[in-house]
Amino acid sequence: MPDAGGGDVAARLDAWRRRIDGVLEDALARHPAAEARLGDAMRHAVLLGGKRMRPLLAYASGTAFGADEATLDAAAAAIELVHAYSLVHDDLPAMDDDALRRGQPTVHVAFDEATAILAGDALQSLAFAVLADAPCSDAARVAMLRELALASGATGMCGGQALDLAATGRGAEAGIHALEHLHALKTGALIRAAVRLGAIAAGAPDAGCVRLDAFADALGLAFQIRDDLLDVEGESATLGKTAGKDAEQDKATFPALIGIEASRARLDGLARTMDAALAPLGPRGDALAALGRLAISRSY
Amino acid sequence: MPDAGGGDVAARLDAWRRRIDGVLEDALARHPAAEARLGDAMRHAVLLGGKRMRPLLAYASGTAFGADEATLDAAAAAIELVHAYSLVHDDLPAMDDDALRRGQPTVHVAFDEATAILAGDALQSLAFAVLADAPCSDAARVAMLRELALASGATGMCGGQALDLAATGRGAEAGIHALEHLHALKTGALIRAAVRLGAIAAGAPDAGCVRLDAFADALGLAFQIRDDLLDVEGESATLGKTAGKDAEQDKATFPALIGIEASRARLDGLARTMDAALAPLGPRGDALAALGRLAISRSY
Repeated sequence: MPDAGGGDVAARLDAWRRRIDGVLEDALARHPAAEARLGDAMRHAVLLGGKRMRPLLAYASGTAFGADEATLDAAAAAIELVHAYSLVHDDLPAMDDDALRRGQPTVHVAFDEATAILAGDALQSLAFAVLADAPCSDAARVAMLRELALASGATGMCGGQALDLAATGRGAEAGIHALEHLHALKTGALIRAAVRLGAIAAGAPDAGCVRLDAFADALGLAFQIRDDLLDVEGESATLGKTAGKDAEQDKATFPALIGIEASRARLDGLARTMDAALAPLGPRGDALAALGRLAISRSY
Repeated sequence: MPDAGGGDVAARLDAWRRRIDGVLEDALARHPAAEARLGDAMRHAVLLGGKRMRPLLAYASGTAFGADEATLDAAAAAIELVHAYSLVHDDLPAMDDDALRRGQPTVHVAFDEATAILAGDALQSLAFAVLADAPCSDAARVAMLRELALASGATGMCGGQALDLAATGRGAEAGIHALEHLHALKTGALIRAAVRLGAIAAGAPDAGCVRLDAFADALGLAFQIRDDLLDVEGESATLGKTAGKDAEQDKATFPALIGIEASRARLDGLARTMDAALAPLGPRGDALAALGRLAISRSY
């Protein structure tokens, strides 16, 4: 059991970052691909790092409700596998056409397009396979599987990605509310699911989940606004991906729609929303709070 | 409850064909896509027909163990959603590059590549969302979700598709055992899952599932040999897809490896295997037997 009183939060986050790598490695090893190159592509997509924000949210949420890490591993891994698959497909030439991700060649560049499509597909399947074996009650497993499926599909992440594609090239035309709706689905749905899955695995009462939604939604939006600001301000070397792509593709972004200063002010407001949502948890919410601050202040 | 004594089997299959269309329509309507074009592409992929072999297998298997159709709808729909998503992705330019499917333009032709990738992704998520709401015990739901995830991913269908891509252009080089292994995964895994999911939803004892595996594996292989023969003998108009593509792409096929006559003889042997596997079920296995015959004799 983690120290519910807080302890060294940064050390706990670091321990979870190391832990999730092992958990993901184990999930891939326990479900070996029938074809070696496909397996290599899946490992490339999953094991080259990244911020691991979503699995960390699952650990932070679940431990806030008293679960130990072993109970949360499946939820954390499943969310990251869905996130990883979505990046593989988003990077494809027919989508965002990105050659660089986390400072490494994207999967279709390192392998080929067909393998990237299949690796993404198989990573999605693996996410559900992992959840089906979570060390929880069958009722909790079903609740997590339902939550992840709805957050991933046309009502969630894929729907948001489709809205994003439809908006690309139309610049500021759609307006700020449409942009927030897009991101609430494209990145928000999975972030909300990460927090909820942790709570479900921990057997948290529904009321706890509802309170966490406000936190997760604010974090998801903050994460995206920060992403937009980094694309304007950042350098490719630090980002590990190509900077300045948003303007080049005439994408609607928060800085483009409301300006850089107002975007930063919006981040401050979201920080206050997160603090308020976590207040009832007291020190048990410290890791979630730290992840909220990270979303707002990250430099990559 | 269906007539367990057999009745008019052809009429029951027809009724299930009509039923699954309604069930799929309902699943799509209950999970509306956040972006209209994405939803249209998903409907295009799912509702333009097809043989519906996999959902029919789920109904035939489940009713053989005493379940009514309403108990089996989720399993039948989930299997067909995974099958439909796999066709959308297989047809992409980076994969098989097919413009025609079931006599209609493929999704990336009717819409665009990015939408086809997302529609496939979202159809996979929807399959798991539908299963999570199956009118069964949570234990049965989890068992079905696990089965479908493993059959779909790198250990199953996606793995088989990767083997197929690796073999394309290498003709007969790999040999007949490699070809059977490829198809046992690429098409066999999902066909086996269809039969198993019906049995699980019906609460069939494990022994029943094991007996059905022999039937499903023979049917899956027969289905593929027939597919290969149709590609050699068929016409695009009847097939609803482009004939002669296998030879053009220098794919290993059963006719290419063992000849047309030996392929037909192999089908006869598989028919006997299926009959033997179903014998213990008596008349309760009539619908499964009819689907086995259909796999062997179909002309499209």
